[in-house]
Amino acid sequence: MEDFEEFEYRPKSVKEIFIEMKNIVELMVDLAYSAVLFNDKEIAEEVLDLEERMDLLNYHLMTHAVLAARNPKEAEQITSVLQMANSIEDISNAAGDLAKMVLEGLELHPVITEAILESEEIIAKIQVKPDSVLVGRTLGELALASNTGVWIIAVRRGKRWIIAPDGDFKIKPGDVLIGRGTHTSVEHLKEIARGVIRVVGDERA
Amino acid sequence: MEDFEEFEYRPKSVKEIFIEMKNIVELMVDLAYSAVLFNDKEIAEEVLDLEERMDLLNYHLMTHAVLAARNPKEAEQITSVLQMANSIEDISNAAGDLAKMVLEGLELHPVITEAILESEEIIAKIQVKPDSVLVGRTLGELALASNTGVWIIAVRRGKRWIIAPDGDFKIKPGDVLIGRGTHTSVEHLKEIARGVIRVVGDERA
Repeated sequence: MEDFEEFEYRPKSVKEIFIEMKNIVELMVDLAYSAVLFNDKEIAEEVLDLEERMDLLNYHLMTHAVLAARNPKEAEQITSVLQMANSIEDISNAAGDLAKMVLEGLELHPVITEAILESEEIIAKIQVKPDSVLVGRTLGELALASNTGVWIIAVRRGKRWIIAPDGDFKIKPGDVLIGRGTHTSVEHLKEIARGVIRVVGDERA
Repeated sequence: MEDFEEFEYRPKSVKEIFIEMKNIVELMVDLAYSAVLFNDKEIAEEVLDLEERMDLLNYHLMTHAVLAARNPKEAEQITSVLQMANSIEDISNAAGDLAKMVLEGLELHPVITEAILESEEIIAKIQVKPDSVLVGRTLGELALASNTGVWIIAVRRGKRWIIAPDGDFKIKPGDVLIGRGTHTSVEHLKEIARGVIRVVGDERA
């Protein structure tokens, strides 16, 4: 989530803004579940920061969209983009509400944790041991989502959170990866991270 | 989505209902994007059916939850479940709104399709050729989410849609899989489905 500032001065195209909104909302939902699961206020804060960014993106989208329509057909098409953006923002608000539960220090029912851990797709913490094959390699090289079925949402490095790490992010020993995937794929990645399994998928890239 | 009827007579535990809600909402969002991407009214109808089921589940959850609390601490915990269920239902409603766009026959802007196809995770149609290694095997055996990183949301078989196929679902030639995954993993599964690649991941199960 680097170029917050830059964005303010150099708005992108409707398409770029819209794609960013779609990516951010998916990240927000994953992070919101993570915040709840790990009862982690820092992740919850990150969700609320993203919710603000989403509001800004939606505002920019509307401004751009209004300028883009030149005839009734285009106006209808543009309306469809705004409608979908509204749905995306509704999801973003729902993720924000989950994050607020964590920030308010609400006593959470154990069923919530169990539901996140027993869903078809789960969220998990994966600690990287020094002799894992992951160490020293970038997320781009590893392509964990394609190669293991686990999507990396965030990484805890010491006291710092890296949210939505990009392809250049290089894994260090001790990193804690927050990933989303099936039970099987998460267990598999845990074995890679522990150093038990020494290959990452069939390493296609 | 088999036992709709059964559910009415044999309500499950708070935990079972809640896990089902979490699984359904994720399916709904994927299906809603699919409905929009393929401009498919049948998938859109399925989203609205699931939205109704979600309402019913939320109703059952509330009934169960109210009965479950026996002291103030438990009441606070149960409130957290209801709050999270509300967020889940908000997401379900947002997915329903997307589905309604399709059913209303709104002229969709090309940016919408592009955003779904250019996001980090995309939705894709994958046609299974007769000589693919997928043919004759069940989704349970194949574990495509873990082995290829592609999550199968639905399958089109002839004129019929199978939504959220379970582990016993056996793939036939000509099936069209609707899957969610990264570009790389979707391309990989397409090659498996075309019969170009003859192994599925490292076939761990």
